[in-house]
Amino acid sequence: MIVILKHGVTDDKRDQLVKWFNSQGLGVDVSEGEFQTILGLIGDVLNLDTDLIESLDIVQAIRRVTEPYKRCNRKFQPEDTVVSVGNILIGGGNFAIIAGPSSIEGEEQLGELAKSAKESGADILTGGSVNHKAATHTIQEQNLKEIGYLKAAKKDIGMPIAKEIYSVEDFEKYEDVDVLIVGGGNMYNYPLLAAIGESDKPVILKRSISARLEEYLMEVEYIMAGGNKNIILCERGIRTFSNDTKATLDISAIPLLKEKSHLPVIADVSRSTGLSKLARPLSLAATAAGADGLMMDVHSDPSQAVRNGAQAVSTDAFASIVSDINEIRKVIGK
Amino acid sequence: MIVILKHGVTDDKRDQLVKWFNSQGLGVDVSEGEFQTILGLIGDVLNLDTDLIESLDIVQAIRRVTEPYKRCNRKFQPEDTVVSVGNILIGGGNFAIIAGPSSIEGEEQLGELAKSAKESGADILTGGSVNHKAATHTIQEQNLKEIGYLKAAKKDIGMPIAKEIYSVEDFEKYEDVDVLIVGGGNMYNYPLLAAIGESDKPVILKRSISARLEEYLMEVEYIMAGGNKNIILCERGIRTFSNDTKATLDISAIPLLKEKSHLPVIADVSRSTGLSKLARPLSLAATAAGADGLMMDVHSDPSQAVRNGAQAVSTDAFASIVSDINEIRKVIGK
Amino acid sequence: MIVILKHGVTDDKRDQLVKWFNSQGLGVDVSEGEFQTILGLIGDVLNLDTDLIESLDIVQAIRRVTEPYKRCNRKFQPEDTVVSVGNILIGGGNFAIIAGPSSIEGEEQLGELAKSAKESGADILTGGSVNHKAATHTIQEQNLKEIGYLKAAKKDIGMPIAKEIYSVEDFEKYEDVDVLIVGGGNMYNYPLLAAIGESDKPVILKRSISARLEEYLMEVEYIMAGGNKNIILCERGIRTFSNDTKATLDISAIPLLKEKSHLPVIADVSRSTGLSKLARPLSLAATAAGADGLMMDVHSDPSQAVRNGAQAVSTDAFASIVSDINEIRKVIGK
Amino acid sequence: MIVILKHGVTDDKRDQLVKWFNSQGLGVDVSEGEFQTILGLIGDVLNLDTDLIESLDIVQAIRRVTEPYKRCNRKFQPEDTVVSVGNILIGGGNFAIIAGPSSIEGEEQLGELAKSAKESGADILTGGSVNHKAATHTIQEQNLKEIGYLKAAKKDIGMPIAKEIYSVEDFEKYEDVDVLIVGGGNMYNYPLLAAIGESDKPVILKRSISARLEEYLMEVEYIMAGGNKNIILCERGIRTFSNDTKATLDISAIPLLKEKSHLPVIADVSRSTGLSKLARPLSLAATAAGADGLMMDVHSDPSQAVRNGAQAVSTDAFASIVSDINEIRKVIGK
Repeated sequence: MIVILKHGVTDDKRDQLVKWFNSQGLGVDVSEGEFQTILGLIGDVLNLDTDLIESLDIVQAIRRVTEPYKRCNRKFQPEDTVVSVGNILIGGGNFAIIAGPSSIEGEEQLGELAKSAKESGADILTGGSVNHKAATHTIQEQNLKEIGYLKAAKKDIGMPIAKEIYSVEDFEKYEDVDVLIVGGGNMYNYPLLAAIGESDKPVILKRSISARLEEYLMEVEYIMAGGNKNIILCERGIRTFSNDTKATLDISAIPLLKEKSHLPVIADVSRSTGLSKLARPLSLAATAAGADGLMMDVHSDPSQAVRNGAQAVSTDAFASIVSDINEIRKVIGK
Repeated sequence: MIVILKHGVTDDKRDQLVKWFNSQGLGVDVSEGEFQTILGLIGDVLNLDTDLIESLDIVQAIRRVTEPYKRCNRKFQPEDTVVSVGNILIGGGNFAIIAGPSSIEGEEQLGELAKSAKESGADILTGGSVNHKAATHTIQEQNLKEIGYLKAAKKDIGMPIAKEIYSVEDFEKYEDVDVLIVGGGNMYNYPLLAAIGESDKPVILKRSISARLEEYLMEVEYIMAGGNKNIILCERGIRTFSNDTKATLDISAIPLLKEKSHLPVIADVSRSTGLSKLARPLSLAATAAGADGLMMDVHSDPSQAVRNGAQAVSTDAFASIVSDINEIRKVIGK
Repeated sequence: MIVILKHGVTDDKRDQLVKWFNSQGLGVDVSEGEFQTILGLIGDVLNLDTDLIESLDIVQAIRRVTEPYKRCNRKFQPEDTVVSVGNILIGGGNFAIIAGPSSIEGEEQLGELAKSAKESGADILTGGSVNHKAATHTIQEQNLKEIGYLKAAKKDIGMPIAKEIYSVEDFEKYEDVDVLIVGGGNMYNYPLLAAIGESDKPVILKRSISARLEEYLMEVEYIMAGGNKNIILCERGIRTFSNDTKATLDISAIPLLKEKSHLPVIADVSRSTGLSKLARPLSLAATAAGADGLMMDVHSDPSQAVRNGAQAVSTDAFASIVSDINEIRKVIGK
Repeated sequence: MIVILKHGVTDDKRDQLVKWFNSQGLGVDVSEGEFQTILGLIGDVLNLDTDLIESLDIVQAIRRVTEPYKRCNRKFQPEDTVVSVGNILIGGGNFAIIAGPSSIEGEEQLGELAKSAKESGADILTGGSVNHKAATHTIQEQNLKEIGYLKAAKKDIGMPIAKEIYSVEDFEKYEDVDVLIVGGGNMYNYPLLAAIGESDKPVILKRSISARLEEYLMEVEYIMAGGNKNIILCERGIRTFSNDTKATLDISAIPLLKEKSHLPVIADVSRSTGLSKLARPLSLAATAAGADGLMMDVHSDPSQAVRNGAQAVSTDAFASIVSDINEIRKVIGK
C-alpha cells in the first residue's frame, strides 16, 4: 500500500505516522520526491483500516498496490489447483459437469435421471432446492431426505454427489456429500465458511449476486485461512438493472477469476438466468470463455417439475448440449 | 394473479389448466373476451411457480395483480405499527435515534459515550462490529464481551440496547438485548429469521444491499409468519455502479416502504455510505423523507477508533445533528 | 394491454373509462369476472401514458401483454433479416467480423493493418475513435481524414468500411461509408436516428450502457419507423457495480435479442471491457452464444497506439482468435 | 499520478519510461524506495492513456492522485459559484425552485399555471417535454411553440424561463431562454456541450442516468473549457436494480458534488422517480441534504395532463411543498 502525504507535511508529523505504522507491525519505505512524500508500506496490510488512514489530516490519498488476498492469488501459485471430487477432477485442464434436478421428487425419479445424465456426460450429480418459505425443520427434513436419495443414486451408479448446504448446524449431515455447494446468499455466512475452512471438504463457493471479484476472493481467502484448499469458484450471475433474466451472467468473470486465482472456475448456467432456453447458449459461451466446468438443472420433464421447472432443460436437450460443449472444449484445447 | 391464454386455445386445454389450478387450492375466475381468455386466480398464489406457468404452451403471459406479501402489507393494516424497544417507541409518530460506536473499546469508553449520546438525544444504545476476518470463536467471545458492556451501560443510564446478531446459535445469548439487529448480509439467513419469527423479540431487519423492495418485504413476511410483529425496517444503502460511497442510500425507499407497509422504517446513515461527512446531510434528508428513526455511528474520538473510525461522527457533531433532526421533525409534523 | 379495475367500481365509471379508451382509437374487450373486471385494450397502445392510467382512482393495476415494439419484433417476421454491407452479408447464418484500429495513425498504417486483418479473416474494416476532449471542429476534421484513409483502404483491398457517426450534421459526409456505427452514448440522439431511419444506410446501433433490452428495441423501432430495415444490433456491455471491466458484457443479451428480434446481433468484444486480454475469451463466448458477428480492435503494435492501445489485440493474436471463432461456428452450425 | 514499477526493473528501462513521460510534456519525480520505485508525474495528466501505461511490461500499477477535472474543482476555487438566471440567483446560499408542467397544452394553460406557481414560490418557469416517438420536425415545431408560450408567460409575469435543448442545431432558437436544460441523455452530446461552452448561456447539465460523479464532472469540465462558467449541476436519479421508481435519486450526490465542485447543485425530484407521490418527501430530503434548488413538475390537473401526468403535483400540493421546503431551509441555515 502507498500512502501519499499532503504537500508541506512536517518531518515530525511524518515520523509520527511512520511510527504508528511500525507499531502495527509494518515496515515503511519512505520516498521523498521533490513535490511529494510517499510512504510504501511493507508487510501485511490486509487488516489496516484504510478508510481511517485516508481520513487523517496529513494524508492526501492512499492507494492499494497489491490484491488484498494471498492464498488464492495466482501470483503466489502460478500453476492451476486441481480439486478432486470423488473420482472426478476439476481444474488444470479437467472439465466437469455438475447436473441434476432442482426439484427432487423421489428416489426413483432421481435414480433414473442420474443414469440418463451420466450417460449424456454429467460427471457429478446434484439436486434439490429449498423452498425457503417453508418452516426451518421442514427444510432440514427435506434436505436430509434428498441427501439420502443422492447417496442411493451414488451407490447405484458411482457418481460423486454435490449438495447445497445452508447452515453450519447441518455440517455433519453432509459427510457423504462429495462436494458442498455454498450459494451466493451464504457468501457472507462466516460460521459456515469457517467450519468448511477447518475441514478438507471440497466446496463450490458461489459468488454473491452483488460481490465484486475482489470481495468474492476475500471470502475465498477466509475459507482458505482455515487450511482448506479444495475450493471451486462459481460465477452464477450478478444483479444489474437488466430485468430480462433473474441475474446477469458475468461472462468476463470467468477469464478474470482464472487470471487472478489458481482455483478452478465453473459457471451455473441455470440459476443465473432462471431461463432454460438460455442453458445452451450460456453453456457453450462459458465453455468457450475458459470455464473448468458447468452446473446445469436437468429434469426428465421440466413442465411437471414440482419446483423451478422453468430453469431446467430436458434430458434430451442436456445430451445435445453436452455434446456441443465437448466439441468446443476441443477447439480451445481443454 | 392473471393468466392470459394464447389466442385460439381449445376449451379442453383451458379446462385442464383450470382444474390444475383448482387442485392447487385456487379458485379461477374465467373471463372470456372476444379476443382473449383471461383466468383470474383467487386464493393464495404466493407459492405458485409463476415461471413454470408462464412457460406452458397455452399461456401467453401471467401478470401479478397483488403484492406477494400480506402480514406487513399496509392494505391489510392501514394504521402504523408501533414497536416498543424497552421504554422507547418507534413508529406511529414516534421517532428514535439508535447510536453508538462501531468500535467498542471497553466498558468505560462505552459508558461515557452512552451518557454523552443520551444527553444529546440518542434513544437506544448500540455498538460493536465484527471483524469477520477473525476466527469464529474469537468473534463470538468479542460479541459476548460487548453485550456485557452494553448491559452495564444500560443498567447505569437506563437506555435500551441494540446489538447485531450473526447466527441462530447465538440467539439465547441476546436475551437481555432489547432489539436485535440483522444486517443486510443476513437477510437470507433463514434459520436466524425463523428463530426470531417464533419469538417476540423486536428486530431491526436491514435491507440487503441487493434487494428490491418486494424481495425485502417477502423476508419480513417470512419472519412475521412465525408470529413476531415487532419488526423495524431499515434502509442501509444499495449496491449501484456509483463508487463514491460504499453503498447508495436509496432515499425513496423510505416513503415507499412506509406506503407499502405499516411497519416503522428507519435509515442507517453511517454504514450505508461509510463516510462520516455524510452523516449530517443524510440524517436530515432521511428525517425529511419521513423516516421513523435513524442509526448513526458515534465515537468520542473517531480518529482513534480501533475499527470503522471513518464512518463515525464525534459526540459534538452528534449533538448538533440531533438538534437539527428535531427541528426538521417539527417542520414535517413528526 | 390489460386494465384491472378496482373491486366495486360502478358501471358508470367503467363505461366512462371505456369511452375514453375508445376516443383514443382503442377497442375495449370487457371481461366481467365474479371478483373483478378486466378491460383488454385492442389496438395500438404504444403511445398510451400507462403511468397516468395506473394512477386513476378506479384502476387497480395495468399490465402490458405485448411488447411495445413491432417492426423489429420476431413475432411479426419469424425469418432472420439479412443485412448487406457492401458485398458482405450479416444475419441469417452469415457471420461477419468488423475489425480495425481504435487509433488510426495514417493512411499507410491503416492500409497495412487492413491487408493483414483481411488475410486473417476480417470482413469489414473500421477504425478511429474520437478524443472527445478535443474541440468540436478538430474532431470533425480528424473524422473526415479518417474516413479518407478508410476509403483509400477500401479502394485498395476491396473491404467494406464501417465508421462511427456522432452527429446528424455529419450525415452527408458518410456517404461512402458502407455501414454507420452509432455508439451507445448516441442511442437517444433522436435527430441522428431519424436521419438514419429516413435513409437506407446500414447501421450498427449499439445498445446504451444503461438500456434494458426493451428500451433498446424501442429505439431500433424508432429508426425502422422511418423505413430503414438495415439495422444490426450490437451488445457492447452494460454498466454494473463490477469495476473489473469498463462495462459488463451481457452475454445473455445475444440469444435474447435474437429471440425477440429478427435483426442480426453482433457483440463488441473490445470496447465493452476495455481489456485486450479479454478479446479472445469473449469473442469465442459471443460466437458460441449465437452472435452473427463481432467487432474487435486490432493494432499492429498496441503498445505504440496513440489511443486505446489497451483494448486492441495484435494482428497475430487477431489471426489466431479468428481461426478459433471459425472452429466454434462449425460446432454450432453457423 | 503515481506509476509504480515492478520489482527489479533495470535503470535503463526506467529511464526510457521517464523519457517518454518527458516527451509527453510531463515532469517525473523519481522516488527510489528500498523495495520499489515510484514515479510521480508532474503536469497535466488528463489526456494520458492510463490503461495503456498500466499494460506496459515494467509497470506494476498506476494510481491517480488528483481528480481529472480542474475548472469545476472546489480545490481551485473554494468559494461557491453563484449563477444568475435572469434576476434569480442560484448557489452561494441562494435557493431556486424551477417549476412547470411537463405537458404544455397552450398559452393560456401555461400562463395561469405560471402565475399560480410564482405565487406559491417558484422562481423559474419551465415546461414541455418531447414525445420522442414523433417525427423530428414535429418535435422541433412543438418545441418552438412551447418556447413561444414560455416567453409570453415571462413577459406577463416576469419570471425567467428554462427549457430543455436537444440538439446543437436548435441553439439559436433558445436565445430568449434564460437557462438551458441539457438532459442526462445528452450528457455526452459533444457538439451541443461545445456550443454551450463557447457561449455564456446559463445551463443546467443533468447527470446521466449511468454516470459516476467523476465522469459527470469531466463533462462539466468539457463545457467550462470553452469559457462558460454558468453551470448548474443537477442530480436526476441513477439507474439501479431497483424497479420501484424510474430511477433512484442518489441523495448522497448532492453533498458530494457540493464538496467536489464550487458549482450550484440542484435535484430534479419529479423526473428522477416518475412518481408524483414522491415529490414531497424527495423535495424536503434534497433540501435538507443541502441542495441549492429543485426542479419539480407541476400541473393544474395532473390526471388531465396530455403527457407525464403521473409525475406532476397539483398546484395546491406544490404550494404546500414549497412552504415546507422554506421551513427546512431555515433549519439548515440556507
